[in-house]
Amino acid sequence: MSSLNVGVLGFGTVGSGVVRILNEHQDKISQITGYDIAITKVLVRDLSKARRYENTGITLTTNANDVIGDPSIAIIVEVMGTIETAYDYVVKALQAGKHVVTANKDLIALHGDHLITIARENNCDLFYEASVAGGIPILRTIVNGLASDHLKKVMGIVNGTTNFMLTKMTSEGLTYNDALQQAQALGFAESDPTNDVDGIDAARKMVILTRLSFGMNVSLDDVSATGIRNLTVDEIKLADQLGYTIKLLGISEETNGAVDVCVTPTLLPKTHPLAGVHNENNAVFVIGEAAGETMYYGPGAGELPTASSVVSDIISIAKNIKLGTTGNVFNSYVHETNKLADANCYAKYFVRLKMTDETGTFLKMTQRFTEQNIGFSRILQLPENDDQATVVVITHTTSRANLHEALAALKNDNGIVVHSHYRVED
Amino acid sequence: MSSLNVGVLGFGTVGSGVVRILNEHQDKISQITGYDIAITKVLVRDLSKARRYENTGITLTTNANDVIGDPSIAIIVEVMGTIETAYDYVVKALQAGKHVVTANKDLIALHGDHLITIARENNCDLFYEASVAGGIPILRTIVNGLASDHLKKVMGIVNGTTNFMLTKMTSEGLTYNDALQQAQALGFAESDPTNDVDGIDAARKMVILTRLSFGMNVSLDDVSATGIRNLTVDEIKLADQLGYTIKLLGISEETNGAVDVCVTPTLLPKTHPLAGVHNENNAVFVIGEAAGETMYYGPGAGELPTASSVVSDIISIAKNIKLGTTGNVFNSYVHETNKLADANCYAKYFVRLKMTDETGTFLKMTQRFTEQNIGFSRILQLPENDDQATVVVITHTTSRANLHEALAALKNDNGIVVHSHYRVED
Repeated sequence: MSSLNVGVLGFGTVGSGVVRILNEHQDKISQITGYDIAITKVLVRDLSKARRYENTGITLTTNANDVIGDPSIAIIVEVMGTIETAYDYVVKALQAGKHVVTANKDLIALHGDHLITIARENNCDLFYEASVAGGIPILRTIVNGLASDHLKKVMGIVNGTTNFMLTKMTSEGLTYNDALQQAQALGFAESDPTNDVDGIDAARKMVILTRLSFGMNVSLDDVSATGIRNLTVDEIKLADQLGYTIKLLGISEETNGAVDVCVTPTLLPKTHPLAGVHNENNAVFVIGEAAGETMYYGPGAGELPTASSVVSDIISIAKNIKLGTTGNVFNSYVHETNKLADANCYAKYFVRLKMTDETGTFLKMTQRFTEQNIGFSRILQLPENDDQATVVVITHTTSRANLHEALAALKNDNGIVVHSHYRVED
Repeated sequence: MSSLNVGVLGFGTVGSGVVRILNEHQDKISQITGYDIAITKVLVRDLSKARRYENTGITLTTNANDVIGDPSIAIIVEVMGTIETAYDYVVKALQAGKHVVTANKDLIALHGDHLITIARENNCDLFYEASVAGGIPILRTIVNGLASDHLKKVMGIVNGTTNFMLTKMTSEGLTYNDALQQAQALGFAESDPTNDVDGIDAARKMVILTRLSFGMNVSLDDVSATGIRNLTVDEIKLADQLGYTIKLLGISEETNGAVDVCVTPTLLPKTHPLAGVHNENNAVFVIGEAAGETMYYGPGAGELPTASSVVSDIISIAKNIKLGTTGNVFNSYVHETNKLADANCYAKYFVRLKMTDETGTFLKMTQRFTEQNIGFSRILQLPENDDQATVVVITHTTSRANLHEALAALKNDNGIVVHSHYRVED
């Protein structure tokens, strides 16, 4: 059997998971690809830290060119996780005619379009299944399994850290800070949790999902992202009383050839399949015109789940090399990129207000919504103390523009404070 | 753009769904395949019933050879749903060098292996995504998305009819008969519901899933199938008291290179992702050594979901024709087929017994289990009337052989009746 050599850039958890899977599942992988696939060279930061790979036949190096420039290597796996350096290496690898697998969502969200062009120019494959929802083969599913369908909406729990935190806040009543500390102690959250809790990580994944689902090349700036930093256990309990579970969702939705992409805490009915996705798990819920509602659930991160997606990409490349069909772009569906205006972007909202318990304040609040043609499907008023009340409303479907107008007007009203507003999906 | 002609055998709901999707999603499909894909001929049973397709450019015929023998047709879609005739037509089509898409689970479960051989001999593609779990692209996911993994267990709610019935029995307390009548009234169940309620339909799908997941070519006779015909609302309530939801699962599990495949009512913890799959929906839960637990959820049947899987298959074939890579077998993973002996097949069980409320009967019951080294994790005793009690036990993990020994011994004991036994998955 002929052999196929792989070089790996970066040797953290994912990199070592790739080594492990290629070793342990060698028989199956050889059978389905027709190749003996072996990792021959790995770029590491510190040779002394990678001693456990001595005597495995893998050459370790701190010089990227040793890997990228090795003519015996056909496939480069990029699992370093930075942006700029990874970008340089991937470009060099593609220009050297090497196929590339990356797990780097930041790289693909920011530079995917450009890298895909370079890959095609060099007749190379570029795959990135592990960049979204770790062990769930969601990108391949959208591009191949759902190829026949006109997708309408993609909603994802695509950040495991915040889903873990929300699960703890919901089921155990933990505060945001305690949930964050637990997540950090378990290694789910970094010491600076900004990317996770502010929805930036989720936004990057939604950029990638949007490109594949709707063929539209949105940028990170096109995604309005609200994270969970200001979400309180109180709000989770209020939602619960109204029959909802709060999840941090990325939502990408197509309407009349234009797309809206956002990341926002979202109230889901407790029976919604996404409401049952707990802990650090991920899930992507897809609504297609024909297939209807399908959902893809699994681990969003972790050494072996992520590595298994990387190795599935390596297998796809190996098959393409065997068939002589490399360099065909993974996702060939392209649609003109149009962004839906806020005036045309419709949803229901949960709005939490604090107001002085005075005659007329409630009337003023309802007037502000009515002025924007926003009706209520549920109202919950709870006394806070002698002269303050918390009011929660669930609106009927309204445009984002109208909601923002109403909230802006409320902010100028005496005695009313808008505490938060989240999306509601039924 | 060059055109690719498709012939359809059978024009029921799925066939007309295929016509609809190919028309409505033409732009996207042309873009990703590079072909103008058109249905040119359809085999119907009765020309007078298919009048709505007059003036659509589709030629209707009652003669299969008009379709199969048409040299301008590259792809045959078989959506007739019988076995023998479909087999003949598919063989003829493949021998005539035509690629085939079928939604026919019975055909693939019974003759898949042989048909795959004929396809390969004739350099043709044979795809059957719609044969399992309708709109969920589960076969492609197992073969491509999870290619890198060593799968350990596949558990599926793969029969929508029985899942609908169980949902009604669980959430509304409907009897088996009332739930069946509702399913029949809604068109989910046929007038003779045997295939659905006795687990035969699910068993056929598990044969297909087993072939793709473990590379093993089991036959329908290798699947021990118990349906829901004897399941009562009482048992659903007993399970509920113990914290479980009952679902009809197909379970295919690999242990040391041998596989066990069964269909059985199964108790799942209420927090298990499969426990939240309601109504006529399907879901397949996959445990891989590396990817861990992933689940794929969606509609198991219906005109458009099933047709969308058929059209995704057509798209795969079109891409292969363009690349010159047809005739490569869809699933190239083959493992020696070994069936796991009942003595090596371990699980937990729910056993429901009726016994006379006499001193010594309970002791006799526990002795029978102890003789087979079966311990209990939960016991629930409920008085039935003055001298009869219902006893439910949840066993610790035991072999199927030991369970059957214990149950056989209990059947010979005076005062004890074994009412039912189902599997428990934690």
